[in-house]
Amino acid sequence: MAKLHLLSPAGFVASGIFAGIKTRQTPDVGLLLCHSRATAAAVFTTNKVVAAPVKIGRAHIAKGCLRGVVVNSGNANACTGKQGEKDARRMCDLAAAVAKCSAKEILPSSTGIIGHLLPMEKIERGIVEAGLALGDTEEHAHLFADAIITTDTRRKTAAASFKIGKTEVMLAGICKGAGMIGPRMTAAPHATMLAYLTTDAQIAAPLLKKLMQQATDDSFNSVTIDDHMSTNDTAVLLASGASGAKITTPAATKAFAAALKDVCQFLAYQIAADGEGATKVVTITVRQAKTEKDARLMARAIANSPLVKCAMNGNDPNWGRIVSAAGLAGAAFNPDKATLTLQGTTVFKNGQPLPFDAAAVSTSLNAPEVKVDLTCRLGKSEATIWTCDLSKDYVTINADYHT
Amino acid sequence: MAKLHLLSPAGFVASGIFAGIKTRQTPDVGLLLCHSRATAAAVFTTNKVVAAPVKIGRAHIAKGCLRGVVVNSGNANACTGKQGEKDARRMCDLAAAVAKCSAKEILPSSTGIIGHLLPMEKIERGIVEAGLALGDTEEHAHLFADAIITTDTRRKTAAASFKIGKTEVMLAGICKGAGMIGPRMTAAPHATMLAYLTTDAQIAAPLLKKLMQQATDDSFNSVTIDDHMSTNDTAVLLASGASGAKITTPAATKAFAAALKDVCQFLAYQIAADGEGATKVVTITVRQAKTEKDARLMARAIANSPLVKCAMNGNDPNWGRIVSAAGLAGAAFNPDKATLTLQGTTVFKNGQPLPFDAAAVSTSLNAPEVKVDLTCRLGKSEATIWTCDLSKDYVTINADYHT
Repeated sequence: MAKLHLLSPAGFVASGIFAGIKTRQTPDVGLLLCHSRATAAAVFTTNKVVAAPVKIGRAHIAKGCLRGVVVNSGNANACTGKQGEKDARRMCDLAAAVAKCSAKEILPSSTGIIGHLLPMEKIERGIVEAGLALGDTEEHAHLFADAIITTDTRRKTAAASFKIGKTEVMLAGICKGAGMIGPRMTAAPHATMLAYLTTDAQIAAPLLKKLMQQATDDSFNSVTIDDHMSTNDTAVLLASGASGAKITTPAATKAFAAALKDVCQFLAYQIAADGEGATKVVTITVRQAKTEKDARLMARAIANSPLVKCAMNGNDPNWGRIVSAAGLAGAAFNPDKATLTLQGTTVFKNGQPLPFDAAAVSTSLNAPEVKVDLTCRLGKSEATIWTCDLSKDYVTINADYHT
Repeated sequence: MAKLHLLSPAGFVASGIFAGIKTRQTPDVGLLLCHSRATAAAVFTTNKVVAAPVKIGRAHIAKGCLRGVVVNSGNANACTGKQGEKDARRMCDLAAAVAKCSAKEILPSSTGIIGHLLPMEKIERGIVEAGLALGDTEEHAHLFADAIITTDTRRKTAAASFKIGKTEVMLAGICKGAGMIGPRMTAAPHATMLAYLTTDAQIAAPLLKKLMQQATDDSFNSVTIDDHMSTNDTAVLLASGASGAKITTPAATKAFAAALKDVCQFLAYQIAADGEGATKVVTITVRQAKTEKDARLMARAIANSPLVKCAMNGNDPNWGRIVSAAGLAGAAFNPDKATLTLQGTTVFKNGQPLPFDAAAVSTSLNAPEVKVDLTCRLGKSEATIWTCDLSKDYVTINADYHT
């Protein structure tokens, strides 16, 4: 089977072109369109400061259907007042002219610097050009994915297929995000994390919305680079129905939900791996917590501690930083019952430090993925958060992004 | 008037000696004793993981009086189980033998690496030696202050004097803390931030406790380096009563509270200035918030954003990071009503970006202190948080602290 990509699900075309918004000569305006009206679900930032395209997008997704999305990178169109909203609407108008649909059937997204008005002349020319460049090949999928990249060092894609009866259903996605990543997206209204997913399954809007929120909680909302929830976070899933496979039975729903979770988790993992300045992914799993909320709070507190992140950068088995981060999370936690394991080596158990070979554990931390496992023995709940280490390169990238 | 120091208030002696716990040849065991029983108040970490000396210290302060404190640096005696508690008690026993008092009148504190048992042979010899080195000069005050330093690059001291009637009252303090700094201390039970304050005022324990909590909230609990609340945070104030000045009238209470707040705030400011790798203090003030809690949440979210901290390191007026951090704090915030000022230049007002000279503002950010002022226009509450920038040196210091 050929490699799956964003346009493998039947019914979609896409493009990405360079309109001169980013200084780097890579695509910065993109279109993803469905041949006919797609069932759609989206989740957005829960930041109180909401970018103009998120405000417009929330309204446009309300009816659970879309013809497509229009995106730009290099400028977030956030903190731009009424003019920003007008500009986001204009992006929809132009994309709608390409798709021959209502502007309300287009979801706009922007990512980049906050507080600058969009360069509308470039954007307008860019959308027209993107309309002329549409296609359904892997190359088109890649150009669209590149059009939303900012400080990312690589393209992030994932795809899955499964069968409903004898029909093969495709589900695919792309995303961006390397900094300002601490999403807490909900279907009501957060990095800039942008994700676009396509499927050719046929599915009702309310079910799609429910499954999208579940998959988001277990994936995008479980990744943090800097815990800085963005004004622009958006993840949207378009279902063309073109495969004819109906997601109506419990078995089909389960298969669809599993594929969606797999794709979203793999995309989220890629965000952690491409975190600004990251040298490794740190996967933090908290087990046997009193509640799922507690498990998430502790995993997130560990993931967001700059002390833990720097120790990971230095391959330093300084586990006291991890246990103390769990203790500050505001969750039920009793160190006397807890066990901490770093890359499989238990370093702390029942309130006591265990002797371990520090040099060997340090060597084991020098890996592309580090697993931190904290068992609380207070209940049955579990959560996993993906993050990355904190390196000097992170500071270089972010001390000088604006200028 | 001679320069005031920790031992300027009458009734105290102190010492600091090198017992070989730290690798750096600077004092690592210290004693601060009062000639007679002092009224005392202390606030401690609210981390669920509580170091052994904090557990013992909480019990010893319960009656509101102390003869003194015994401290060590280089080892936090945290996550050390029952043996850790036994060791903390042994420190009190030895200090009590020096002071000729009950072990319950001694408050122990430790700071350094988590998860290692104290080297008791060195500690025991160290406390005996510290007992022989006691004195009340500025030099003694400095040696005690040095004995609690870990990654700090400098000693932190503050002092004030005021008159009650014709009697001059002294109030002085020292503190340490450069990393694992995100205190939320309460009189019930947080960096390691350690602060020791002395006064020769005569004051009742309940009033001292109340004033200490108020001063802590407006100072130590308002400083963050890495938002990583420690297992060992402790601030303690000993009142010898030796001046004879009684803090009983509203006017005297007000004068005492003002001096205490001044001393604590100056100490807290010094912690921000000496934050690991810091090149500047960032003072974040949120005004006209709906509630004080909201003001604190927003100021803290801004202070803890690595994106904001890196921008400050790069003198980058990337204010979108500041406004978006306010929006993610979980507080009432409406960007359409808000105004943001950086070093006196308004860059954002009523939801709109304002034109400004980016080069001039960048130059203004290149200063020992940067003032970030966010006005919300939603109420009358205000909060100030002190933090520092995030530099490459921070990563160097923390990627390699353990080994």
